[in-house]
Amino acid sequence: MACLKFVQNCWSSTIAKGASLVHLGSCLTQHLLSGHDGNVLSSLKLLAARPGYLKTSLPIEKRHLNNHKAMHGGVLLSLTDTVTSLALSTQGIPAPTGVSINISCEFVRPGGTESSELIGIGEVVQRGKTLAYTRVSFYTPEPESKLVAFGSHTKHMGKNVPVTKFSEDGETELGLESHDGRKDRAKL
Amino acid sequence: MACLKFVQNCWSSTIAKGASLVHLGSCLTQHLLSGHDGNVLSSLKLLAARPGYLKTSLPIEKRHLNNHKAMHGGVLLSLTDTVTSLALSTQGIPAPTGVSINISCEFVRPGGTESSELIGIGEVVQRGKTLAYTRVSFYTPEPESKLVAFGSHTKHMGKNVPVTKFSEDGETELGLESHDGRKDRAKL
Amino acid sequence: MACLKFVQNCWSSTIAKGASLVHLGSCLTQHLLSGHDGNVLSSLKLLAARPGYLKTSLPIEKRHLNNHKAMHGGVLLSLTDTVTSLALSTQGIPAPTGVSINISCEFVRPGGTESSELIGIGEVVQRGKTLAYTRVSFYTPEPESKLVAFGSHTKHMGKNVPVTKFSEDGETELGLESHDGRKDRAKL
Amino acid sequence: MACLKFVQNCWSSTIAKGASLVHLGSCLTQHLLSGHDGNVLSSLKLLAARPGYLKTSLPIEKRHLNNHKAMHGGVLLSLTDTVTSLALSTQGIPAPTGVSINISCEFVRPGGTESSELIGIGEVVQRGKTLAYTRVSFYTPEPESKLVAFGSHTKHMGKNVPVTKFSEDGETELGLESHDGRKDRAKL
Repeated sequence: MACLKFVQNCWSSTIAKGASLVHLGSCLTQHLLSGHDGNVLSSLKLLAARPGYLKTSLPIEKRHLNNHKAMHGGVLLSLTDTVTSLALSTQGIPAPTGVSINISCEFVRPGGTESSELIGIGEVVQRGKTLAYTRVSFYTPEPESKLVAFGSHTKHMGKNVPVTKFSEDGETELGLESHDGRKDRAKL
Repeated sequence: MACLKFVQNCWSSTIAKGASLVHLGSCLTQHLLSGHDGNVLSSLKLLAARPGYLKTSLPIEKRHLNNHKAMHGGVLLSLTDTVTSLALSTQGIPAPTGVSINISCEFVRPGGTESSELIGIGEVVQRGKTLAYTRVSFYTPEPESKLVAFGSHTKHMGKNVPVTKFSEDGETELGLESHDGRKDRAKL
Repeated sequence: MACLKFVQNCWSSTIAKGASLVHLGSCLTQHLLSGHDGNVLSSLKLLAARPGYLKTSLPIEKRHLNNHKAMHGGVLLSLTDTVTSLALSTQGIPAPTGVSINISCEFVRPGGTESSELIGIGEVVQRGKTLAYTRVSFYTPEPESKLVAFGSHTKHMGKNVPVTKFSEDGETELGLESHDGRKDRAKL
Repeated sequence: MACLKFVQNCWSSTIAKGASLVHLGSCLTQHLLSGHDGNVLSSLKLLAARPGYLKTSLPIEKRHLNNHKAMHGGVLLSLTDTVTSLALSTQGIPAPTGVSINISCEFVRPGGTESSELIGIGEVVQRGKTLAYTRVSFYTPEPESKLVAFGSHTKHMGKNVPVTKFSEDGETELGLESHDGRKDRAKL
C-alpha cells in the first residue's frame, strides 16, 4: 500500500490547491474555487498502484457529460493528463510531475453514462532524464471491461525526480539509496 | 453576424443543458449542475465566425489551472474538443455535431495565467458525408499572439447535417436551397 | 496456422502488386517496381496471428536507416500503417482493409541498428461497421524486449468486411455462417 | 536563395549517405543501397525556403503507392518526418536535426495518383533549447491545392544548434553574431 498512499498524497495535495479560499461566502464551495483537477475530477478514486502502474475509477456525474448525455471528450482527455501524471508519481515523483509535450486520445466507444463508473489504467512506458512516455486505457466497469478510449501523454520532466521508490508490488517504500547504501530521502 | 449568432445559439443551448435543475437549493449554481462545457468553459466568448472558421476567447480563471498555476492540459484539450465542434456549427450544423474519433494536442508554451485570456481559432479542414477533420490553434492575447498549443479533432458526423448555410463572410444566412431553388429550411 | 496463412496471403498479394512489371530490363528488380510496402517492408516476417492479434519481425537493413544510422521514423510509421492493417486481416478481411483516418506514433527508444530485428505487435482494439481502431507496439528482440515505439491507426472500413473467420487461437478457419448454418464463403 | 541552398545541401547529404557503396555490381543502384530517405524520397524537390518555412514537391511514383493504387500512408508519414526535419534546417541547423518524440498525421483526402505531384509545406512552430515543434500540410498541385493530409512532429533537439542564420525572406545568409558583432561561423 506504500505506493498507493504516496500517490494518494500527491493527488490530495493537487486537488486541495485552492481549498484555503473556501468559505468566503456560504454558497461558495471548494468546487468553485479549486483548479481544474478539483473542479472536474475531485471524485477520482485511486484503486491500485505499483511502480509504473496506476488503476483509477471515476464515478460518472452530470458535470462529466456532453450534450449527447455521454462522457465529454474533455473529461477523458483531462483524465488522460491527470491519470498518467499520477502514474509517474508511482515512481516516487511528487506532483507536479513535469510539463506536457503531447496528449492524444482515441475514442473507441461511448464513455459510460451518469451513475456508472469509468476505469482508467495509467502506465509509465519509459522515463529517461528528460522525457517520460505514458499511456492510458479507459474501460467500462468489470466484469464487462470494454475499452472506451486509449491515449498517450509525453512529458518533459525538467527537475522532477524521484524522492523515494517502492518495491515492484508497490507494498513497501524502499527510499533512495545513497552511495554508501543508506537511505537519504531527507537529504533531497 | 448571422453565422456568429447561429453558433452562439448552439453554444448557449449546449451550456444551458442542466439549467432546468438549478435552484434546487439556494447554494446550487448552474455551474454545479451543468455538463462539462458549462462546468469548465461557461465563460468562453465567441468572437468571430464564418463558414469553417471560429475565433474564441477564454478568460483564464482559477478553475482552469493545474498545480503549476498554469492552464491545465485538460482545459486546452476540452477547448480543442469544444471549439472545433462549434467550428462545425459555422457550417450550419446544430450542436451536437457528431462524435469524436480522435483528439490530439501539442503543448508549445505555458497557456497563460489567471486573469489573462486564451485565444482559440477553430477551423474545419474537410467535412465529407461521414467524417469531419478539424484543427485548432491557441494563442496568447493580441498583439503578442504567441502560439500556446495546437491540436486536431476528427469526428464521425453520423446524421448531423447542415440545416442552413451562410455567406463566405458569415454575415448573411443563405439557407438550404431546394431543388427548385427555394429555401427549404422549414422542411428539415 | 489458418489465420497466419490467411494474413500471409494478404501480405504476399500486397507486396506482389507490381511484380508483373518485373524484368523490363535485366537490372530492374521487383524492389524498384513495387509499391511502398514492397519497396520498404518486403522482408517483413509474419510470426504469429490470431483474430485481432499479429506478431511480426522486421530484419533491419540499410534501407531502413536515417542519417543517425538508426531506424528512420518513416519506417516505424510505415510499419504502424502496415502491421495494423494486416492485424485487421486476422479477422478474415482481405487486403486492402479500409482507408486511414489517423496514424500516430511515439518514439520511445532508438529503433535498433542494422542486422538487428524489430518486433511489431499489431492489435485490433475495436472494429465496428464504419471504423476500426488499432494499436501497435514495437520491441527490441527477445529476451530483452524493450519498447521502441508505440502507435495507433484508425481506419474507415468502407465496404471491407470479413470473408471468413478463425478460431480464437487462430488455428482453425471457421468460415462465415449463413442463416441456415452452412458456410457461405463462396457467396460473398 | 541562401536558405534554400543550405537546406538543399542538408538534403543532398542525407540521401547521399550510402552512395559510396554504389556500383558493387552493375545492377545495384544507389536506390538499393541508401537509407530510407534515399529509398523512398530521393525524388523530393525543395521549392522554397525561409527561416521556419519549407515548400517541397514529391513526384508520385509507383514506389509510393499502396494496394489501393493511392499514396501509401507510410509515404505521407515519412514525408511528415523528413519535410519537418528539413524545415528545422531552414533555421541554420545542419542535418540530422534532433531525434523524434512524436509524429502524427491525419489523412483527409486520397493523396494523389501516379505521375501527379504532392506539395508539402513544413513549418517550425516553436524551437526552444530542448524541444522543437513542427507542422506539415500536404496539398494536391496548384491551382487546386486541396488539403490531402496534415501532421505534426515534435523533436528533442539535443546538441543540434544553428551554425548560421538567414534573413526573414531566406535570400541572405547572416551567419551567427559573436559578442563583439563579427560573424563567427568558423569558430563553431
